[in-house]
Amino acid sequence: MPDVTNAPVRVAACQLTIQIAEPEANRAAAAAAIAAAVGRGAQIVVLPELTPSGYVFSGAQEARSLSEPACGPTARQWADLARVHGIVVIGGFAELGDDGKVYNSALLADRSGVRAVYRKAHLWDAEADCFIPGDRPPPVVETEFGRISMMICYDVEFPEWVRLPALAGADLLAVPTNWPSEPSPAGERSILTVNVQAAAFANRMFIAAACRCGTERGVRWVGGSIITGHDGYPLAGPASMTGEAGEAASEILIADCDLSLARNKATGPRNDSHADRRPELY
Amino acid sequence: MPDVTNAPVRVAACQLTIQIAEPEANRAAAAAAIAAAVGRGAQIVVLPELTPSGYVFSGAQEARSLSEPACGPTARQWADLARVHGIVVIGGFAELGDDGKVYNSALLADRSGVRAVYRKAHLWDAEADCFIPGDRPPPVVETEFGRISMMICYDVEFPEWVRLPALAGADLLAVPTNWPSEPSPAGERSILTVNVQAAAFANRMFIAAACRCGTERGVRWVGGSIITGHDGYPLAGPASMTGEAGEAASEILIADCDLSLARNKATGPRNDSHADRRPELY
Repeated sequence: MPDVTNAPVRVAACQLTIQIAEPEANRAAAAAAIAAAVGRGAQIVVLPELTPSGYVFSGAQEARSLSEPACGPTARQWADLARVHGIVVIGGFAELGDDGKVYNSALLADRSGVRAVYRKAHLWDAEADCFIPGDRPPPVVETEFGRISMMICYDVEFPEWVRLPALAGADLLAVPTNWPSEPSPAGERSILTVNVQAAAFANRMFIAAACRCGTERGVRWVGGSIITGHDGYPLAGPASMTGEAGEAASEILIADCDLSLARNKATGPRNDSHADRRPELY
Repeated sequence: MPDVTNAPVRVAACQLTIQIAEPEANRAAAAAAIAAAVGRGAQIVVLPELTPSGYVFSGAQEARSLSEPACGPTARQWADLARVHGIVVIGGFAELGDDGKVYNSALLADRSGVRAVYRKAHLWDAEADCFIPGDRPPPVVETEFGRISMMICYDVEFPEWVRLPALAGADLLAVPTNWPSEPSPAGERSILTVNVQAAAFANRMFIAAACRCGTERGVRWVGGSIITGHDGYPLAGPASMTGEAGEAASEILIADCDLSLARNKATGPRNDSHADRRPELY
């Protein structure tokens, strides 16, 4: 595979409206978002967690009924679009594993097809009723645009987990999320978005987090999707957030990311955010 | 020692002007800040990194000449003030160890005297010419106000390091810092301050970070001192920051912290920011 170049890569994070248990409609919304992002020049497109199914399942049975294999209709759609447009697509879906178990997963597809599937390792709330937690670290996929990893929503709140793909060489971490809305103080960016910034900063790694919107069975969503630079500052977003001023809305963030910057962990003439770790003490 | 109560504890983070190689003046400034904080009801007072000495040393010789033992004049001053006022003081100083080596250290004093000394484990830039890195985890000190830990400046950029005192039960992490100023995008809070918020959020632990100000041998400082809640949102600050609008200024942040909240790591009915870790995978 070619090494990463200094040419910036155009990344999109799609904050989508998703409807529970409407996979066809949700896939159509995802396809429309991918088309819109491609129309704006995107080469890497990140979609939310559980894009085809929605999130607030009535229970394990509904989650299973909305699950699909990693070669199912959603994977086919995203792989087709990746092939047609020559892009990389990362998005979340309810995976029916070969083992018959249901996982909260994400996949990465490029022009050659599905390259990797990741299963969420840290489950939030009622997800534990519906999904089996994954036990494999986030994959780091060498793509034509750079090395891309992925994890899902609550996973990114565990700095140890973020560290793994960063140490394995990821330039960009894609984070499909469904962040349930919680109140935040007036004027404050959601701490979930802030946390993504710090995760990027700690690892000098780009992060693109795509949240969702659309009230679902009484649950609202943070929004606050963001694409951060390797320095932790936003390159695009945060997208609209649910708060006193209203509700998060559909939005496509676009940022040009020079992923080669993530290959250099130097933070100063004598410092390096990875080499300065002291793992013998942790 | 008494268990932590639900009564809020008043915490102060003192963003001070410090002058290189003027320990008497700097100790006087620290004493004045402590008095001012006590006047506002503070029970825990956090001072910057290397408060008595300043930071931008000409080299190892100057750093050594400004170092003092952990029972030296600075420790005596802070322990005296802690005793007189019945408070806890945490601050940074250049430590001349019993082993003859010089460390970038912090101490915690309460009414009974110096309770703990911590030696910075992650050294920034030219610090490596002046100091030996510590190799002991941050202590967690049971005080009359709660369990307090401390680390210094660059240390807090390593989430693994922050995790250690949090897992060991710290309610409040005191972070004396000297953050050298770097440009940040217009309208953005310094990523160093953002990182402190995320560190608190990841551990449901209060953090009080006290930076400094006063240009020193050409170096300016971020400012941006902050006291965060256990949810990562600011309870006080960020204090003034160096940027287009001007330079960080002396400021005392005050926040009432219900440290008992840090004893409960639950983030929802079925989630817990520590119990949900999967250390077998990290």
